Parts: sequence; structure tokens; C-alpha cells
Amino acid sequence: MLQLPTYDDVAAAARRLQGHAHRTPVLRSATADRMLNAEVFFKCENLQRMGAFKFRGAYNALSQFTPAQRKAGVIAFSSGNHAQAIALSARLLGIPATILMPLDAPQAKMDATRGYGAEVITFDRYQQDREQLSARLATERGLTLIPPYDHPHVIAGQGTAACELFEETGPLDVLLVPLGGGGLLSGTALATRALAPKCKLYGVEPEAGDDGRQSLRKGEIVDIPTPQTLADGAQTQHLGQFTFGVIRRDVDDIVTASDAQLVEAMRFFAERMKMVVEPTGCLGFAAACHAGLPLRGLRVGVIVSGGNVDLARYAQLIGSAVGPAG
Amino acid sequence: MLQLPTYDDVAAAARRLQGHAHRTPVLRSATADRMLNAEVFFKCENLQRMGAFKFRGAYNALSQFTPAQRKAGVIAFSSGNHAQAIALSARLLGIPATILMPLDAPQAKMDATRGYGAEVITFDRYQQDREQLSARLATERGLTLIPPYDHPHVIAGQGTAACELFEETGPLDVLLVPLGGGGLLSGTALATRALAPKCKLYGVEPEAGDDGRQSLRKGEIVDIPTPQTLADGAQTQHLGQFTFGVIRRDVDDIVTASDAQLVEAMRFFAERMKMVVEPTGCLGFAAACHAGLPLRGLRVGVIVSGGNVDLARYAQLIGSAVGPAG
Repeated sequence: MLQLPTYDDVAAAARRLQGHAHRTPVLRSATADRMLNAEVFFKCENLQRMGAFKFRGAYNALSQFTPAQRKAGVIAFSSGNHAQAIALSARLLGIPATILMPLDAPQAKMDATRGYGAEVITFDRYQQDREQLSARLATERGLTLIPPYDHPHVIAGQGTAACELFEETGPLDVLLVPLGGGGLLSGTALATRALAPKCKLYGVEPEAGDDGRQSLRKGEIVDIPTPQTLADGAQTQHLGQFTFGVIRRDVDDIVTASDAQLVEAMRFFAERMKMVVEPTGCLGFAAACHAGLPLRGLRVGVIVSGGNVDLARYAQLIGSAVGPAG
Repeated sequence: MLQLPTYDDVAAAARRLQGHAHRTPVLRSATADRMLNAEVFFKCENLQRMGAFKFRGAYNALSQFTPAQRKAGVIAFSSGNHAQAIALSARLLGIPATILMPLDAPQAKMDATRGYGAEVITFDRYQQDREQLSARLATERGLTLIPPYDHPHVIAGQGTAACELFEETGPLDVLLVPLGGGGLLSGTALATRALAPKCKLYGVEPEAGDDGRQSLRKGEIVDIPTPQTLADGAQTQHLGQFTFGVIRRDVDDIVTASDAQLVEAMRFFAERMKMVVEPTGCLGFAAACHAGLPLRGLRVGVIVSGGNVDLARYAQLIGSAVGPAG
């Protein structure tokens, strides 16, 4: 029987993060309110340190290392925000960090991870199994492995964003949260059930990868092939044991958004709210606009999870929909 | 003898704006701190209503209309942020608004201004003098003209952003402020001299249009041809009587930034801070990076004035510097 994390763990994480994570702003948009006939509150984790909520979970996990763990170091595998979150948290806490990244990961992400002082080890993702490889490295070098989402300390850390949101807005009627492996959604669920028990809580997945919705329907974790979607932060193949345990208990439903809807939301954020949001970070607002949820007249929270997107790619995405970008 | 606005006017404006303007966030960036070897505080007016600080001055001015003025309406001429600021403020206050815009103004800006409920009247800027035209319309229709910067109520309103900044950060050592016609800089100067008297206050102009710096050196308002610069919010030909009066008394110096430096800052804001900032809004940070000011070890405020930039154009600017965008 798994011991699921609780709201007390989230509250403890909030105390650990104080003065280390940014308290990100909750922004409003009169245009969004008009579009949805609702009061919309955006919790802007794209403005978090290293550009995504992932910093919260990573820092919460690493700050609980024993002295021996701190000395030996941490290992993580990720080609995305988790890598940078672990690398930055490790630097802040003086812990050596090793990050496994696929050989073909974008150079910019490798550079950013190295820039935070981590050692990057590359592997061939078509020939080598990253979980085996990282487990072997962890054993050989005595490193502690921190997975990207299925870990109670990671989940508890991610839940602190929703705590800050509710502190600012009071209870909301609806809350929409991007869903990949479920770290953010399950942490948010713990906070929501404690602080706004009547709030309807929805996870939002990319249409191309709705394993979470399938899992909820089926009552067990469903595994899918890596989905093809712009939302690279939600290209997970399955939920985790911990995240699924919380999600099935505490989340009202899981809905989806298409890539075209994500690009539309990305353009909305740039044009109307002056924010750079990565495709995955657009899932919540895209679903608010298109998933047919009853929002009229309600107080609606949207977690904007991150803003890490290659600038040339971003320019292409926001520029292209209005005609030739030049 | 001109009666210059005072800090009391700024404090009164802050009370009028409460609950109407956004209290915009003050954001930090560890990367910016490292780049400048300083503690940098960004006051993000790109996240203000209608995307720029201009809302503050416009709302402050319109909210002081007499009942007769309210009934008759307001007129303004602008192809930029002032038009939208007046249109939105007028709608919120139930005042009819007429905006004069050049025939060749971007369609998006005309649409946005009409979207706020204003009547847009176009004119041929090569054939007609907009000041004469607006004066005639004001007289014929009994409208009150609110100029874009040279008005005590506008100046007082713009100063409220700096009040909020100092409330959050305490006194700063240096503050950098974009400079076009001087509404933001003079309002900021009133707030700074009252709340952080020892703070060094710099205006930042586009290199191609340094009429403000010339005026400061010469001790009188210098007029220049419309400068060619990306910073379309600072393409003014001269300061105003009120703004110059405050600036010459209260501002330490005026420095400049080149268009290339603005694009570099725009990319920094997108990539590292996940914010869309228009070229004019980049003036302060560009100067912090390149104007050779002594900032090391200091607490430095930067006012990011706005984020209104055509999305296709923006995509071109941030995409182009890293290689072909599309």
C-alpha cells in the first residue's frame, strides 16, 4: 500500500520554499474574463525561477536530503524543465548534480543545464534505457535519483503554487491544471481539497496523449506510446503510482486540448497578457476556452505552468498564424 | 510661470487608481543580477491594463472631469498606447471618447481602440495638422483634449508606478526609466524625490532621438525631426513644458540605447523572464546593460513601460537574431 503525500506535506514544502522560490504573480485579463464570461485568475508559473513550476518540487526534494545524500549528489533524467530544476536547486543547496540527457536534446537545454553547474551525461535514447542507465549510475556513484514527477516530495513541492493561488484569491469554483506525469496536478489536488474543497479540479492533457483520462476511466494506469504534440512537457506515456493515487481520488475530471488550441492560447498570452508561455503551459487556458466546461459566472483559476520554449521556435509559432512572419 | 505637479498629486492619483489599475508585479531575475552584478527590480508595466503604464495617466485625468466634461466627452490624438489608454479609461468611466488617428495607423491599433468603444476619426498626417484638427473638433463638439504627456494629471498618474515599486522594494540606489515625451519620467521623478531622495534617476531615450538629453544639456526644450527608431513609443520630437520643468529639476541624467540593444533586451525578456516587452519598454534595461552607468553592487530599479507590439513584427524581431525564423 502506497503512502500518498498529504496536504501537510504541501504546507511543509511551502515553508521550505519560502525565500527560495519566487512567489509568482496571479494575473488578470479583462479580455479573458469577457471571452469566458467568468472571473479568471492566472497563476503564472512561467515567471517562476528557471521558467517553470518544476523548481518547486525539485527544491523541496533536494532540501530534504541527509548530509550523506547531499555529499554524494543527485541524479535525474530529463530533457526538459526537470533537468534545469534539479540543476538549479542542487546549485543553490551545494549538492553535486548529474543529469542524463538524450544525445539529441536541444543544445540550448544542455547548455542551460550545464550553466547551472550540473554534469550532463548523454545517452543514445534509441539504444540505451535511461531508467536502467540512471539506476546503474546511482548505484555506482551512490547518487540519489529524483524522478520528474512520481515522488512524494516532488508532488508536495508542486502543490505549493496552488496554495499561493488560493491565499490570494480565496476559494475558486474551478481550477484547470496542465497534466503530463501528474506531479503538478496531484500536488494541486492536495492543496485544493484542503483549501477549496468545493472547487472543481480538472487536469488538461494534450489531445494526442490522453493517457491520464483513459486511466481515470479505466481505474488503472494506462500506458500509451510517446504522443506527438507541441506540448513537450506533457509527452509522458503514463501517470505514476503516487500521482495516479492522488488524481483518481481528488480530481474531478481530465479534459484535453489540441495543438491548434495551444497555439491560439499561446498567441493570446503574448498579445493580450504580454507573457511567453510554452505549449504545455497553455493547456489550462486552451481547455477553458474550448473544452465545453461550464464556467459562466464562475471564479476560474488557471495554472500557467511554464514558459521555456526555444525562442526561434516560439517566434515561428506566434508569428505564423497571422501570416508570413518574414 | 507654470504650476508643476507635485508628489501630493501623485499620491492622490494613486488613491484614484486603486482598484482600477493593476498593481503590476515587481519581478526579479537571477540572470539579470549576475549580468549587472547588482540587485535588479523590474516594475512590469507591460502587465498593466491595455499593456502599458499609459492607463495610469489617462484614468487619473479622466476621473477628474467635471460632470459637464464627462457628458461632452474626451478627445485625444495618438497612434499608440495613449489612444487605447484614453479609450479604455473613458469606457470604464462612462465618458464618450473620440480618438484621432493617422489614416495609415496599423489596423490592429484602430481595431483595439474601437474595441474599447471609442470613435476613431482618421486624418491624413501628410496633409492635416493633428493638433489644429483636434483643437477644432474639441471646440466644435465641446470635448476636453487630453494630450499624451504634457498634462499635470497625466504626469501624476504615471508617477504611481514608481510609488508601487518603492513600496515593494524600499529606496533604491538607481532607477532607469524610458523617455519619450517625458510623462513617465517626470511622474517617476516626483515619486522618487519624495520616496527615495538619494536614488539616482536616469531617463533613457533611443539613440536616434536624444532630444531629451540635448534639452537637459542646453537648459531649454530642443526640437528634433521625428526620429527613426524601433522604439515607437519614444518617437517624440520634444519634451513638454511640464515634463521638462520636472525633468530638469529632478532627473540626474539622460542616457540612450541603440535599436540593436533594444532587440537584445527584448530577447532577454522573452527568453529569461518570459515576458513580451515592446521596444520602448526595453530602454531601461538596455541602458543598464550598455550605457556604462556605475551599477555594481547596487539596488537598481528598471521600469518596463509596455508590451504592445504587433505579434508578427515581434516574432520577426525575437526570431531573427537567432537565425532564420521560419
